[in-house]
Amino acid sequence: MKQKLKIVKIGGNVINEKELLASFLCDFSNMEDLKILVHGGGKRATEMAKNLGLTPKMVDGRRITDKENLEVVTMVYAGLLNKNIVAQLQQKNCNAIGLTGADANTILSHKRKIKNIDYGFAGDIDTVDSNVLNILIENKLTPVFCAITHDKKGQLLNTNADTIASEIACAMSSEYEVELIYCFEKKGVLTDINNDESVIEKIDSKRYLQLKKDKIISQGMIPKIDNCFHALENGVGQVIIGKPEIIRNEQLKNTTLVL
Amino acid sequence: MKQKLKIVKIGGNVINEKELLASFLCDFSNMEDLKILVHGGGKRATEMAKNLGLTPKMVDGRRITDKENLEVVTMVYAGLLNKNIVAQLQQKNCNAIGLTGADANTILSHKRKIKNIDYGFAGDIDTVDSNVLNILIENKLTPVFCAITHDKKGQLLNTNADTIASEIACAMSSEYEVELIYCFEKKGVLTDINNDESVIEKIDSKRYLQLKKDKIISQGMIPKIDNCFHALENGVGQVIIGKPEIIRNEQLKNTTLVL
Repeated sequence: MKQKLKIVKIGGNVINEKELLASFLCDFSNMEDLKILVHGGGKRATEMAKNLGLTPKMVDGRRITDKENLEVVTMVYAGLLNKNIVAQLQQKNCNAIGLTGADANTILSHKRKIKNIDYGFAGDIDTVDSNVLNILIENKLTPVFCAITHDKKGQLLNTNADTIASEIACAMSSEYEVELIYCFEKKGVLTDINNDESVIEKIDSKRYLQLKKDKIISQGMIPKIDNCFHALENGVGQVIIGKPEIIRNEQLKNTTLVL
Repeated sequence: MKQKLKIVKIGGNVINEKELLASFLCDFSNMEDLKILVHGGGKRATEMAKNLGLTPKMVDGRRITDKENLEVVTMVYAGLLNKNIVAQLQQKNCNAIGLTGADANTILSHKRKIKNIDYGFAGDIDTVDSNVLNILIENKLTPVFCAITHDKKGQLLNTNADTIASEIACAMSSEYEVELIYCFEKKGVLTDINNDESVIEKIDSKRYLQLKKDKIISQGMIPKIDNCFHALENGVGQVIIGKPEIIRNEQLKNTTLVL
């Protein structure tokens, strides 16, 4: 039987609130299964860009990463946020190791092709090296990924953290029984955005199509749920969306995705 | 017989010049022995602090790291510089993995005690975990350290890169035949700061005492050379100070330290 591996993704809303982050990292440290953390940090990067006099450019909620903004996200994601998360996990006796996709060539991507929009230095993932992640995990290290990858031509690339979590989950599923957990500010996917209790507890592919058709699932959630189904279609055993607290109490209401 | 391990430290002067850095990283990638890179980056951090409206505080050439400046060095050293160096090494087929001392708990330090001067979040090293570095090296990874460590109480600490290189060298010398190479802008320790050819080719402890007494070795060089002797006294086989090109051509003029 395969060993369990949990891959947890947290977004900017958890990272930006000091106490929420500390509480989450405590729960994460206490998780007994093998684990990998993936974090975003867009809000902090936007603040830092503004502090440096840059104008963050967004199209449909996606960042346009020009040269200057790539420097900012590299500093904020891989430096400020990743290393503070690692230091806090170390305090809690979780032997964390912070990584970008460039480190140990873990995540190889290519610069997104220009179609209608030029996203600049945005990376679309080609491969995740599960071998090197296995070596780290087998040596009781807990990888902590930020949302930066590289093209192996010397270029760092800004990469969606949800997609990184999904692609790592897929790559690791040949060796492990993988559970992918997306933590965000809601209890799950809601039928009514204004009602926190309107959680859809289970979404299968058929229901997903209907929810999109009925415009109950909005623009921002679609890429996240696409990442969930991509994982399920590629060997990942379980995918959950919910509040950060679900890693402590799996009985909490959440949205479970199934094929 | 022990395997050879080379530990190379580069400073801000190499990092800040794009072409010089690219050329150095090419030479470093071509080094056939096992290797670890340690880099500084103070100049770039000072620029970034200024861009953010902060006033970098220095006393006798040493940075006073207040909370805001710790954020800057964390971003610049661990994010911007470390990850760009790693990406460039990956391009050159060197399987680099960028680390702070917090990552995998590799370098544990404590906040410098306040005597006459409060250096703020400056770290003095307690231990280097050679076991985890061995695991990385044995798996053909090349650690690339920036000048950030941690106290395992959740606090990142700004730590002198020369000292990091020296302490890693000491810790690894029980397992490897370690050579420590400090690269900087001069060909070695000079008798006349204005004459690049006035390299002192060999300095032993006795000569060092005399050079300090005669004020030929100036304030800035003393901590560097102290790090060299500390390494030699703790099992490191060879310590060299010179230009970055010495890693390509060991016949180049340099300063070799001996006990």
